[in-house]
Amino acid sequence: MTDINFKYVDNSGLIGKEEYKARLERNLPSLDRALKGEEKYKDTLGWHNVSLWAGEEWLEKYEETALRVRKDADALVVIGIGGSNQAARAVYEALGRKNDVEIIWAGNTISPYSMNEVLKSLENKKSVYVDCIAKNFETLEPGIAFRVIRNFLDKRYGDSYSSRVIVTFTENTPSWNMAEKEGYTLLPFPSNIGGRYTALSPICLFPLAVAGFDIKAMVKGAKDMESRLKSDHSILNVALEYATMRTMLKEKGKSVELLSYFEPRFFRFAKWWKQLFGESEGKEDKGLLPMDTSYSEDLHSLGQFVQDGSPMLFETFLNVTERESTCPLPSDELEDGFKYLDGKDFWEINKAAFNATLAAHSRRFPCLVLEIPRFDEETYGALFYFFQMACYVSCNITGVNPFDQNGVEDYKKDMFKLLGK
Amino acid sequence: MTDINFKYVDNSGLIGKEEYKARLERNLPSLDRALKGEEKYKDTLGWHNVSLWAGEEWLEKYEETALRVRKDADALVVIGIGGSNQAARAVYEALGRKNDVEIIWAGNTISPYSMNEVLKSLENKKSVYVDCIAKNFETLEPGIAFRVIRNFLDKRYGDSYSSRVIVTFTENTPSWNMAEKEGYTLLPFPSNIGGRYTALSPICLFPLAVAGFDIKAMVKGAKDMESRLKSDHSILNVALEYATMRTMLKEKGKSVELLSYFEPRFFRFAKWWKQLFGESEGKEDKGLLPMDTSYSEDLHSLGQFVQDGSPMLFETFLNVTERESTCPLPSDELEDGFKYLDGKDFWEINKAAFNATLAAHSRRFPCLVLEIPRFDEETYGALFYFFQMACYVSCNITGVNPFDQNGVEDYKKDMFKLLGK
Repeated sequence: MTDINFKYVDNSGLIGKEEYKARLERNLPSLDRALKGEEKYKDTLGWHNVSLWAGEEWLEKYEETALRVRKDADALVVIGIGGSNQAARAVYEALGRKNDVEIIWAGNTISPYSMNEVLKSLENKKSVYVDCIAKNFETLEPGIAFRVIRNFLDKRYGDSYSSRVIVTFTENTPSWNMAEKEGYTLLPFPSNIGGRYTALSPICLFPLAVAGFDIKAMVKGAKDMESRLKSDHSILNVALEYATMRTMLKEKGKSVELLSYFEPRFFRFAKWWKQLFGESEGKEDKGLLPMDTSYSEDLHSLGQFVQDGSPMLFETFLNVTERESTCPLPSDELEDGFKYLDGKDFWEINKAAFNATLAAHSRRFPCLVLEIPRFDEETYGALFYFFQMACYVSCNITGVNPFDQNGVEDYKKDMFKLLGK
Repeated sequence: MTDINFKYVDNSGLIGKEEYKARLERNLPSLDRALKGEEKYKDTLGWHNVSLWAGEEWLEKYEETALRVRKDADALVVIGIGGSNQAARAVYEALGRKNDVEIIWAGNTISPYSMNEVLKSLENKKSVYVDCIAKNFETLEPGIAFRVIRNFLDKRYGDSYSSRVIVTFTENTPSWNMAEKEGYTLLPFPSNIGGRYTALSPICLFPLAVAGFDIKAMVKGAKDMESRLKSDHSILNVALEYATMRTMLKEKGKSVELLSYFEPRFFRFAKWWKQLFGESEGKEDKGLLPMDTSYSEDLHSLGQFVQDGSPMLFETFLNVTERESTCPLPSDELEDGFKYLDGKDFWEINKAAFNATLAAHSRRFPCLVLEIPRFDEETYGALFYFFQMACYVSCNITGVNPFDQNGVEDYKKDMFKLLGK
């Protein structure tokens, strides 16, 4: 079982233990409502019970469809933006290639240069498939990318191109019907989940299955986390601990939460996390601004600001505890000034850098640490579910709707006017 | 000549035109001191006169050394962290490959996984060279990466390996002498420039020359910008305009500056920019927190926060004005719902998205726009010099030293203790 542990290290004295404990108690009703799932949010709680979109029958369907693609493809173009690609990409870019199918990400920008780069990368591919993912296929980015990729497939494969197209659309919408008519393979975009909560659904699981990831393990990690969280209505619930500490810090004047990590391959996960919290909490002039730093690189950059700049932020560290990779430092006769590291491994040195950073930063502000065991599918499943629930709890504490995102619409109105829609 | 234009769009009413003009006048002495270069900073102003480290003789030397490498190499490992790799990487990743030499970035992390990925990527390379860049070769990350790469080269090429090593170190330091003894090729790390201001020096120019970039054009862009800025001590100086507006916004309660762009390939440039401003201004409990968003992707993520969340930020847009890339939207018989875009090009649609975002966001807070003509070396040279000078002016206005970074040392003390140094 994948465990996520929470701790906080505070040598700044900002938050006292008693104060924290009292607040945990006070937040129990917010936890309770989130764990049960509130009636008023019922149309968006499709993620709450992992089995709903990732039960055994569903997994078989995703695997079966994936198997057909995997057998023949060397490239899968995943068209999607925001919640439609972040989770899958987080896993894909962290865990490394599992088979010969390369995923190529498209539909997440309007840059002509980027679109052309996608087309260029397809030139040397022998067998290209596409998965077009959109809850609402009126979204411009996936819409125009899908046209370009259809055009590419049509030119290369002729009329049979449609056997290479999978769409993940909301069922029984005009675009779903159009896709059905064209003979595309159809997967359902869960109608009762908003984009940023779809990590345990075909949005993320299908492309990962094509690329050879163990989606059963991922779902197991999520289900175990679901059980663990739902069975604990006490102040020891780890989602409550994390949500309580971060909302307390916001009240104490911290306005930015930095997600920090010492493994650069967490980068895409951090993008997923930033969307989850930024879109869920960033409304009604509220919310912590979510930002990330990739250490040790960014210690040589934003590290200065974190340590000495405006005291507006606190930090949440993702820390992987089990040694999973090794790179021994070769010994060397050269007088290079690094003899003090002889016999050490990058792993140990990296951990020393983490512990030193934690020590230094926690003298300035409270540091939160989420410990996870390793980089694998099961852990990612647990992480996705954990943060989704913790976000729900956080929003219950601060009093915003975790599942809407009306602010996203503003620029769209201006844009559609400019484009004559 | 590469021009950078500054404008601001404010429909929020936060900053009045008269108030802005008065402040520009008041900041003229800060501009003046920066344009002249202050005696107290003389040990760190090596970047101020571009010719000092990028004059014709220097360029010939960098080119000559680069030519030797370029003729033989198919990979150049650039070892460097922070200011030692951000500028080169910003150009390399934005302008695309120019020749057959791939740059592989190392020494910017302690992750064993990342180090092993670098080694893996070298397996299929035929002829590998390395450029190890460090102002102070006591820095741990380049130190340990250099050991691993030396070990790799030694195993593959034997004693002749040293002809494949270039180091960019501070002259006449112990590491410089060690490198000389080993027979490495030596390039000087400018002793009178701090890492984050080294874009127009061998730190950035040499690796780019190896990879086939036109470093003369880059230096021309920087020199033209230097002339333009230094010849204008008026309130129309573009560095003063940008510095004044951003520091005024800080005074009005904005605490985060978002660098936003609609071309994802600005991503690495944004990392360089974040270091420049974060490290220069983030001290004495001061400074704007520098952050970036890559649109339109992040409109489907942080866009919600920007529009509706805590009103703590303002935005600076990088906008490329000359059409440089094209991707026409193919017409399609399918009823896909995007007929209203028929005949349009991604370029136009992307510009509509930019203009719509500017309109929507500027109703909430003042938006700054920096217009640049195109993606090329000359423009990047101008951008680097522009921001370096604007940062100096900004720090003069807020009253912090733009060139030190004492906060970076705190975690290092803890780390060296843990590692027994």
